[in-house]
Amino acid sequence: MKIGILGSGDVGKALGSGFATLGHRVMMGTRDPTSEKVRLWVSKTGPNASAGTFAEAAAFAEVAVLATLRDGTESAIRLAGPQNLAGKVVVDTTNPLDFSGGPPPKLSIGHTDSAGERVQRWLPAARVVKAFNIVGNPHMFRPDFPGGPPDMFICGNDASAKETVAGICTTFGWPQPIDLGGIESARYLEALAMVWILTYFATRSGNHAFKLLRK
Amino acid sequence: MKIGILGSGDVGKALGSGFATLGHRVMMGTRDPTSEKVRLWVSKTGPNASAGTFAEAAAFAEVAVLATLRDGTESAIRLAGPQNLAGKVVVDTTNPLDFSGGPPPKLSIGHTDSAGERVQRWLPAARVVKAFNIVGNPHMFRPDFPGGPPDMFICGNDASAKETVAGICTTFGWPQPIDLGGIESARYLEALAMVWILTYFATRSGNHAFKLLRK
Repeated sequence: MKIGILGSGDVGKALGSGFATLGHRVMMGTRDPTSEKVRLWVSKTGPNASAGTFAEAAAFAEVAVLATLRDGTESAIRLAGPQNLAGKVVVDTTNPLDFSGGPPPKLSIGHTDSAGERVQRWLPAARVVKAFNIVGNPHMFRPDFPGGPPDMFICGNDASAKETVAGICTTFGWPQPIDLGGIESARYLEALAMVWILTYFATRSGNHAFKLLRK
Repeated sequence: MKIGILGSGDVGKALGSGFATLGHRVMMGTRDPTSEKVRLWVSKTGPNASAGTFAEAAAFAEVAVLATLRDGTESAIRLAGPQNLAGKVVVDTTNPLDFSGGPPPKLSIGHTDSAGERVQRWLPAARVVKAFNIVGNPHMFRPDFPGGPPDMFICGNDASAKETVAGICTTFGWPQPIDLGGIESARYLEALAMVWILTYFATRSGNHAFKLLRK
């Protein structure tokens, strides 16, 4: 598959490297594709990796991954061009974190809205699936925990898009993600990210991930 | 310890039976302590169990457990009498579920408020700790899952009250619960309950519980 990553931060790099390792072609979309940081990632990631503008990465993508920082999502989508993402699967990994009160952050929206729903509104013709927002980036690809694998939860309005993303999750080491319904369930998944983050502050460690024990 | 349970539904009975099994004295507080259902629970639970009004159970309690249904919490607290709970640890197990749109439910409040915070406002002199709201009642006492034990998350404003509740969780089979901070973190724990509930609807099974994998 051709993967367009929108955002060159730690999440974008972690997911982009995972896709490249699995043999997908990955274009990292970023404000400045010629920056040292981005060129370093491309050369380190190998022949499956390239970099471009947000619009180039969006046009390149069969599946796009939103991995922008909290304030950059709307402008990245504008730069990417919603028409370049029409009909495509867009994986939304973002959380609407507000750090203005100092750490730990809070959610800036919730209960009646979510980042996932906003992204779907900004990209009305795309098929948005929330995923990979409930764990720190070092554990997104091939998570390795005693008692694992952990579980991923996803949501979105389009069933076939969720099947595509479930397949991605499985190849990334998150088998059989749990489908929580329409994109409005992002309200709960973004709150679940806060449980992850507050656990980070409670334990001073980011080496954790959720598993759903079942019988 | 003397435990007052406020609410005689499935959660109240499950937790009350757990406390009685562990040797605590338990009074089930309910609107009608003489009802067949309540008398049956008392006789089944044995000599550690009794029943009374909400006010009697609150006055009896060293630790009180709020296990009311969604609409009954405020009136149960009024009937219990906030003065009967002043200074006491109150474990809030409730979730603000709105079933008016049919199943699955939604949260009726969130993001800027939570059931936990409301309970703390209704009982300003009590030491409220959110706990046991993220799992179905059959698994609250001695949860038994492959790969377990699962993890409990708690929050509240009073550190010593949280220590008391952490001890209760441990004896119930939820060792070392994770402290997510002040009672406002109930916003996230009540959303986490929705993840549990939506998983129930996704899998048509309530036999699941969260574990935090760590390394």
